[in-house]
Amino acid sequence: MRDFRSDNTHAASPEILDALVRASAGTMTSYGDDEITARVRVRCAELFEHDVDVFPVITGTSGNVLAIAAMTTPGAAIFCHTDAHIVVDELNAAEFFSGGAKLSPIAGANGKLDAEALARAIEENARDGSCVSITQATEAGTVYRADEIRALCDVAHGHGYRVHMDGARFANAVAHLGATPADLTWRAGVDALVFGATKNGALAVEVIVVFDRALATALGPHWHRGGHRPSKMRFLSAQFEAYLADDLWLRNARRANALAQRLAAGLPDVLRPVEANIVFVRLAPEAAASLQEQGFLFYDWPVFGADAYRLVVGFDSTEEEVDALVRAIEVARNKS
Amino acid sequence: MRDFRSDNTHAASPEILDALVRASAGTMTSYGDDEITARVRVRCAELFEHDVDVFPVITGTSGNVLAIAAMTTPGAAIFCHTDAHIVVDELNAAEFFSGGAKLSPIAGANGKLDAEALARAIEENARDGSCVSITQATEAGTVYRADEIRALCDVAHGHGYRVHMDGARFANAVAHLGATPADLTWRAGVDALVFGATKNGALAVEVIVVFDRALATALGPHWHRGGHRPSKMRFLSAQFEAYLADDLWLRNARRANALAQRLAAGLPDVLRPVEANIVFVRLAPEAAASLQEQGFLFYDWPVFGADAYRLVVGFDSTEEEVDALVRAIEVARNKS
Amino acid sequence: MRDFRSDNTHAASPEILDALVRASAGTMTSYGDDEITARVRVRCAELFEHDVDVFPVITGTSGNVLAIAAMTTPGAAIFCHTDAHIVVDELNAAEFFSGGAKLSPIAGANGKLDAEALARAIEENARDGSCVSITQATEAGTVYRADEIRALCDVAHGHGYRVHMDGARFANAVAHLGATPADLTWRAGVDALVFGATKNGALAVEVIVVFDRALATALGPHWHRGGHRPSKMRFLSAQFEAYLADDLWLRNARRANALAQRLAAGLPDVLRPVEANIVFVRLAPEAAASLQEQGFLFYDWPVFGADAYRLVVGFDSTEEEVDALVRAIEVARNKS
Amino acid sequence: MRDFRSDNTHAASPEILDALVRASAGTMTSYGDDEITARVRVRCAELFEHDVDVFPVITGTSGNVLAIAAMTTPGAAIFCHTDAHIVVDELNAAEFFSGGAKLSPIAGANGKLDAEALARAIEENARDGSCVSITQATEAGTVYRADEIRALCDVAHGHGYRVHMDGARFANAVAHLGATPADLTWRAGVDALVFGATKNGALAVEVIVVFDRALATALGPHWHRGGHRPSKMRFLSAQFEAYLADDLWLRNARRANALAQRLAAGLPDVLRPVEANIVFVRLAPEAAASLQEQGFLFYDWPVFGADAYRLVVGFDSTEEEVDALVRAIEVARNKS
Repeated sequence: MRDFRSDNTHAASPEILDALVRASAGTMTSYGDDEITARVRVRCAELFEHDVDVFPVITGTSGNVLAIAAMTTPGAAIFCHTDAHIVVDELNAAEFFSGGAKLSPIAGANGKLDAEALARAIEENARDGSCVSITQATEAGTVYRADEIRALCDVAHGHGYRVHMDGARFANAVAHLGATPADLTWRAGVDALVFGATKNGALAVEVIVVFDRALATALGPHWHRGGHRPSKMRFLSAQFEAYLADDLWLRNARRANALAQRLAAGLPDVLRPVEANIVFVRLAPEAAASLQEQGFLFYDWPVFGADAYRLVVGFDSTEEEVDALVRAIEVARNKS
Repeated sequence: MRDFRSDNTHAASPEILDALVRASAGTMTSYGDDEITARVRVRCAELFEHDVDVFPVITGTSGNVLAIAAMTTPGAAIFCHTDAHIVVDELNAAEFFSGGAKLSPIAGANGKLDAEALARAIEENARDGSCVSITQATEAGTVYRADEIRALCDVAHGHGYRVHMDGARFANAVAHLGATPADLTWRAGVDALVFGATKNGALAVEVIVVFDRALATALGPHWHRGGHRPSKMRFLSAQFEAYLADDLWLRNARRANALAQRLAAGLPDVLRPVEANIVFVRLAPEAAASLQEQGFLFYDWPVFGADAYRLVVGFDSTEEEVDALVRAIEVARNKS
Repeated sequence: MRDFRSDNTHAASPEILDALVRASAGTMTSYGDDEITARVRVRCAELFEHDVDVFPVITGTSGNVLAIAAMTTPGAAIFCHTDAHIVVDELNAAEFFSGGAKLSPIAGANGKLDAEALARAIEENARDGSCVSITQATEAGTVYRADEIRALCDVAHGHGYRVHMDGARFANAVAHLGATPADLTWRAGVDALVFGATKNGALAVEVIVVFDRALATALGPHWHRGGHRPSKMRFLSAQFEAYLADDLWLRNARRANALAQRLAAGLPDVLRPVEANIVFVRLAPEAAASLQEQGFLFYDWPVFGADAYRLVVGFDSTEEEVDALVRAIEVARNKS
Repeated sequence: MRDFRSDNTHAASPEILDALVRASAGTMTSYGDDEITARVRVRCAELFEHDVDVFPVITGTSGNVLAIAAMTTPGAAIFCHTDAHIVVDELNAAEFFSGGAKLSPIAGANGKLDAEALARAIEENARDGSCVSITQATEAGTVYRADEIRALCDVAHGHGYRVHMDGARFANAVAHLGATPADLTWRAGVDALVFGATKNGALAVEVIVVFDRALATALGPHWHRGGHRPSKMRFLSAQFEAYLADDLWLRNARRANALAQRLAAGLPDVLRPVEANIVFVRLAPEAAASLQEQGFLFYDWPVFGADAYRLVVGFDSTEEEVDALVRAIEVARNKS
């Protein structure tokens, strides 16, 4: 079986597993007041060149919606892309945690919000206490450049709205762009980043990185009240510490990105620019069925067309797996 | 430093860490549709002698409040002990997830709800769609016998209410009583158990064990919407599988319970029956201060009296640590 | 000043004011257990030819969202038209009261949901515990026939979803169609109707008419907990009793509908079928400005086009006002 | 039948009914932007000698919980008396609207919070973003003096908490004390008052009077999202305008208070100081039953003792009714 379903079907980096074993020594203060969490904060501040607060959580959903809840008030809208994870996959979590903020999805090519479209959507539905949510890399496997993020943040801030970045694949975006984490976040106007690790080698940890003290203060009780503050926090923080150590996060992401490029290079009918670790491809249904019978696992993606399929490369996928898929697609296409 | 602050300051069992490493092999379906989670369900059904649904989560808070949310309707009350974790420690999580159910705390000796007091409290404040929440072992380190649980459940069911059991220290209770898990849960009337592992050797996992299909169906969307359904579920389930394997859960609990007995046996002025891994003791403030200066870590417990202190033994605490504390207390008491 | 802004800028029917004075005699049981509310229930059961429960409330928003909250579960979607009041005007009330149900707006000509489009939308986003919300008359001033309602309800019920009808202008729809209230509601599959009176002659009352006992039981605590159950309920119920007496509701609606027809007949460029008391018209901006300078009050309606305007006729509008507007529009158009 | 059940079983003042008829003339801007609501704001500012924002609502419950929701953050507690309406009667509305704030009830003699007990309760359970809620007059029919209110507000403000006053019977308190509305509210530290009219002659209106602009800004969206902002607001505001005109509010309250004094003067075994329009009395159960058979309506009040009963005098109760009750009680007591 060769698995291209999602990055979250993949295993964990050995470095991160080792860190868990090391972290399990002796006793440590619970609920995040431990030394490992403190080190994660310092390390994030260095990496982002900015004072930060950090809130480790176990799911991207919780990271996203806790940050959004802390950014919005009762009458709020959440402006975001129609394909955003918070719209499609999180089963009303954003509405629930925010006490009912209304998702205002905006269409945009290649999974990306456009600053003009955002400005129009806000004008049609301006509400105090709203926020804008950006996904980096996007659900379409594309990446926002720093200037694109800034344009979006400028629109948001012009209305007094804060900006949340869903960074489930932030590492892939940084790896692709070669920009600094700072340039892609607070320097461009992002107020809080959910810095993903789970899809890129961790067992289960994302860190909400908050660039603004007032926002961090508001976020604290959401975190605890949401049941998202584990008592043995060290075991979340240890994963993230290992993730940042020796650029593991970048190495894993670069590897997955490179494999995605290798995969795309071997395929005709690639449907979206390949800028992260995801390739969307058009396939005849019989070709797709044949591939799945051969043990290649992947999902159809009808939102991109009736014959669209998504191929996700994991941080631990191999060149062999990618090349096998390329060959199998070639064979299947020739048959059909 | 010798740490008696809480079981959640302690490390993880090597068996459980090993299981994580083993679980990190190849790809696996995400969001709980993996084979390890399936095995945990089967194993729980065997252990509880009953068909069950299982919902792994990362915190006791989330387990408790998701189960309670699935059991209650908008006008509901949550009848529970005044010292319950959901009242004291979870920062409005029960109110939030249930959409505003009102906590109705009831006093009771030794941390235990009494069936008569429960009946009175419900009569004074009967509301459709309410629930009763029991903590086993209690926050006072005591344990409900099966007949006591049945008496409480009978009162609850007589009003059409469901019963939730906060089992953060369920293992310690089973170890103390020698009763079967079935006798202490569904056979006595419990509808859902939050079966804790974090305090007893896991890194971070509790499993909501649901004995009723309709309740499980209601719980599913709460779980996902709450951001409490991790994508790489295998890493939660693997912890729990190792926890149940070879009775690790019972061995750890027995060990901690025995050390608590050893500790209590060496102390005068023990304030509550010692039936789990917690000892409450009266100490002169100067004695307590002196102990803390010597590197013994523990919390004062003013709710049990101005000079009350809580001593928690971890699954990995040692006889040496316990004996050292006993001796140090003896010395400190003689001085003061 | 001649006011075509909304039906809710208009006054109250003298019959309804008289009923308030009559209701203010002696004491009466509070919170809805009074004799007037009991009579409203009986009267509604007669009118709808079905046993019903009734929940008087003071706003259409509260009526809508309480009914929807009682119909949905945590993971739910609310399928409705893109122009629905619950989407556009109620500031997240549906999301809030339902604990975060996600609005799933569906486009449709003339303000109406189409059964096929509804079926597609549900298929793309099926979720247990969802509901469908229909507006009768629609926000576009059009009206669903009984068979159209049935087609929508059949789709909903096929998925196990309940159906809510926002009947802020239900009277106008009944008056237009000449069908029975029963045929337009439960016989077609509607589970709960928010039967509006405020826009059609009351001071402030809508009644949630529930055709299903289980739903009514679920709704009760939402009603009270929402702060929407006034203590002196008789003063809401008395309004509604007078509204139903001697067909005042139909007489008021027929009058407003007829005036809308009269208005539309005098205008070119009517944008939507006129089936209730609302006329949408295309006007040159200078013409619109000129009319407003002359004291005609009305709103632009950009969602129907840059030069679209909405003209609403009240139950107490006059032929003189309508004719004056027709003439003024004619003059303004000739000028521009 | 002579009705002493509650002030909300009573009718409406003729002056207020007249005002409704007068308000029903011509069209008027909806949702509170009408001239009557504007006048109510001006009149409240004069009465309270302070700039204010006003939010008319139809129930005391909604007024209380909207104000509290605007004052609290996710981790909050609501410190209040154990007998407070928000604890006993509002079915989780405070928890729901605040997104789960935890009620922290505090016992206190004669229905009153004591500043020292409040300080202790807050110290035991301090949480950022909490609030204190005071009821004036209290549920025990007693009244806080200005200095008592100030002492409570000082404690609250010392923790950065805001103060809400449930003024369902504020008029009765002002009438009893002869103090100015300003002295009993903002001058003593109250941030928002729910100024009741329903229990004292209105059909159904309370006005949230907010003394702080930032709080008013926060409250606005709660009001609308809660479905508590009626479209034909003029009919709520007209009630309140008439209530304030010519001191109707004070005249009604003085009348009810005087009748309560007259009632208490005729009774032995009065259980609480009579400072508003409520008298608590001890009665033998047979005496109570006999009175009820004679057509006197009133409730037992077990929270004040097994043989405690509550007698509420309405603004439109009569001396004859009161005297008849006094005589009947005398007769009933002699018999038993």
